[in-house]
Amino acid sequence: MKETTGASQSHPLYRQVYDHILNRMKRGEWKAQDKLPSVRLLAEELKVHRLTVFKAYRQLTEDGKVYVKDKSGYYVSADSVLVEEGVVISSYLQSNQLSDIQRNPAKYQFSQSLIDPNLLPNMFLSDYVKKVFDMYPKVMGTYATVQGDDELRESLSQHYKEHHRLQLSSEELLITSGGQQAINLIAQIMLGPMDAVLIERPTYGVALDIFRRQGARLIPVQITPEGYDLEEVENLMRMHKPRMFYMNPTHHNPTGYTVPVWQRKLLVELAERYHCLIVEDDPFRDIYFDVDPPLPLFAYDTEGWVIYISSFSKYVAPGLRICAVACRYPFMEQLIKAKSLADNGTPQLNQKIFLHYYTSPRLQQHLGKLRIALQVHKEIMEEELAKVGWEWTSPQGGLNLWVKLPEDISVEALFRKSQEQSISFVPGEIFDTLGEMKSWIRLSFSFANETLLREGMQRLTALSRTL
Amino acid sequence: MKETTGASQSHPLYRQVYDHILNRMKRGEWKAQDKLPSVRLLAEELKVHRLTVFKAYRQLTEDGKVYVKDKSGYYVSADSVLVEEGVVISSYLQSNQLSDIQRNPAKYQFSQSLIDPNLLPNMFLSDYVKKVFDMYPKVMGTYATVQGDDELRESLSQHYKEHHRLQLSSEELLITSGGQQAINLIAQIMLGPMDAVLIERPTYGVALDIFRRQGARLIPVQITPEGYDLEEVENLMRMHKPRMFYMNPTHHNPTGYTVPVWQRKLLVELAERYHCLIVEDDPFRDIYFDVDPPLPLFAYDTEGWVIYISSFSKYVAPGLRICAVACRYPFMEQLIKAKSLADNGTPQLNQKIFLHYYTSPRLQQHLGKLRIALQVHKEIMEEELAKVGWEWTSPQGGLNLWVKLPEDISVEALFRKSQEQSISFVPGEIFDTLGEMKSWIRLSFSFANETLLREGMQRLTALSRTL
Repeated sequence: MKETTGASQSHPLYRQVYDHILNRMKRGEWKAQDKLPSVRLLAEELKVHRLTVFKAYRQLTEDGKVYVKDKSGYYVSADSVLVEEGVVISSYLQSNQLSDIQRNPAKYQFSQSLIDPNLLPNMFLSDYVKKVFDMYPKVMGTYATVQGDDELRESLSQHYKEHHRLQLSSEELLITSGGQQAINLIAQIMLGPMDAVLIERPTYGVALDIFRRQGARLIPVQITPEGYDLEEVENLMRMHKPRMFYMNPTHHNPTGYTVPVWQRKLLVELAERYHCLIVEDDPFRDIYFDVDPPLPLFAYDTEGWVIYISSFSKYVAPGLRICAVACRYPFMEQLIKAKSLADNGTPQLNQKIFLHYYTSPRLQQHLGKLRIALQVHKEIMEEELAKVGWEWTSPQGGLNLWVKLPEDISVEALFRKSQEQSISFVPGEIFDTLGEMKSWIRLSFSFANETLLREGMQRLTALSRTL
Repeated sequence: MKETTGASQSHPLYRQVYDHILNRMKRGEWKAQDKLPSVRLLAEELKVHRLTVFKAYRQLTEDGKVYVKDKSGYYVSADSVLVEEGVVISSYLQSNQLSDIQRNPAKYQFSQSLIDPNLLPNMFLSDYVKKVFDMYPKVMGTYATVQGDDELRESLSQHYKEHHRLQLSSEELLITSGGQQAINLIAQIMLGPMDAVLIERPTYGVALDIFRRQGARLIPVQITPEGYDLEEVENLMRMHKPRMFYMNPTHHNPTGYTVPVWQRKLLVELAERYHCLIVEDDPFRDIYFDVDPPLPLFAYDTEGWVIYISSFSKYVAPGLRICAVACRYPFMEQLIKAKSLADNGTPQLNQKIFLHYYTSPRLQQHLGKLRIALQVHKEIMEEELAKVGWEWTSPQGGLNLWVKLPEDISVEALFRKSQEQSISFVPGEIFDTLGEMKSWIRLSFSFANETLLREGMQRLTALSRTL
């Protein structure tokens, strides 16, 4: 695989000059109707042959970005300085919408897909920190390797083997600072202009911003309580030859749906057949209720067509930002390069603290308690929902309920009224690339405590009746 | 300023298709002599008008990437799949060379521009960590904001005011995970294909890799014990209209040189006049010996043409990776966007630990001791160098000596022989974009302890006589 970010350098030289001139016009260095530097001058400035600049100017003229005035030279045409970076803007808007909603302090907080810090093991995590300093007195004085702490990768590959039946060497693991960095690095390596990317609909916003920045085309795949429509997936792969399918198949955010085992096996086969990399984002795996989730798709992959991202921020320690990416060579090689340019390695301290907490018996106790607590939260929310005629599929894990309101209730109106009463949730259309799904909402049950949860749900449902 | 990484999206659609096709050929999806999909098919796949695809194919034909065979369609020409990403490769090689040298375990370690962990305050840093957990029991359970912890930015803006006379609000500070991430984010925002970047010669490698990946043209500016040749700088700015001048003007790596005050003021004026952003990388400021270094260029900037990067990894705690970037709006706005996509914020824990250590009286004590220790190291190295006729300018701070060997000594031979005797240093040409400076070497005095330092230097100089 080539590093698409560097690809422009292997384009014809005159086209790099073309891009360069266009960028300078966009930055306002050369405004509409301005006279552009002569071929000779620009050639000298850019240290290229005059013919190259001439060719670039000719192309810009043909594309209507530049016009020639009676032999006196090249001028910037009016339209060329208008920038149409629609998608990027709108995606930023989308995620800004989300963060605006979440920044808004609400008494009844159902918009934060985060776990109540009181349910997290902060209190005794400090013991582990102390322990880490006793074990590695110089931990603060040393940089980590780019790929990540050897001891941590070794122990994670063991953990994956035992818990998820993943056959992994520590060489096939990269430690990143949170799941988002992982997605960003993968996108930098994989995606160029107009490359197709399959994404679930609905989906979580941040990944979209990253893909769009790379100029990719996003192609939605419906996710339902039964998983995907594999025929649709295969058609989309045949039709669009997507570079990747970015998915969150276990306790999916925002819906909580989980893709069944039989589909996981077939999806890996499809990925192989159509050379479509599956990027499996799996932050909610360990947050399940009664039944264990199916194995990751990565477990069924023998040909290296699945990249597995497991971020531990959600339930171990958001303050640590530790995430592990599992993939095979040669992809890992490129990922390490990208990571080395991005930040040259995740802080060593964070990796050591995480290692010793994660491998401790305490974590398992903590997880057991956490699962019960979250299930209770979920059930409180569901009890209140059951009293009104709202529809949802009870999830087997995760932090959210994906709820469909009756057609006669305007989510927008409900959202406005709720904010007045200090109740916050996320309107479903924010998770929809097509901006539809207007009668859906995401309710997070993980953040508010039990009392506020019930009280807030009662107020919310009552409010809906007043509309 | 526009985000150049997204800029391709505002190019004519047919050119995005052109790039897309070229990338797919480069990835080997379509090999030399392969028949390309028909205009109709590709138009359907990419959801664009047939004329757009036709125009892209015509352009590719004109550029010799594609050829037409007797009306039967478009074919991939032989040369178009050869990728010429020379610069990127070579820059990776360069930095790999450096890390190879440093990975090589040597008894006499003079290639690591790092401080001996024994000289770092690891031992009592753990107390601060404990303290942090008592003060913020939930620190592990909360994400930081994208821009960085408010308390930390508040206190840093105070610190800069008192120590460096920088007028800064906390809103004008962004916390990143190390200086490299800062450089990477700035480059993503600022640099497009063929944009000119001024860089010192010699210079430290990693920034180069980042600029080259953006497709930038690197234009070297000589740095000497007297600073830069400002006439040369102005000529280069006039000639190349560089987007930025990336500099390390205080205790410069690898040379240890410091740019004088009078030049700093003029450089800021030049930056304003030629709209060339100065990226001031300043990790060694606090590591000075007898005299305080001059104020940062940022202190003289009133128009927002300087971005100030201060990484604290070097002498506080490499294991924390805390760095602060100071700049004005609207640039800060874009920097925050880029940071939010990159990793959504630096870990909260690291910021709090750093905050409480950095503001403690202990840090000043530590720094005082550290400066003395490093000065002693430097003097030991200089004593040994003085015995042979090697030339260097004694630096006022930093971690390295930049040494010129007599013409009759082959650095390459010396390097090979040294490795056999477990002595490591860095050949100067690695820091030179032009690959010259073959009679220079960088000797780091900060890592080896005093005994090994003297012993190693004696062996090295003795070795040079045997050549």
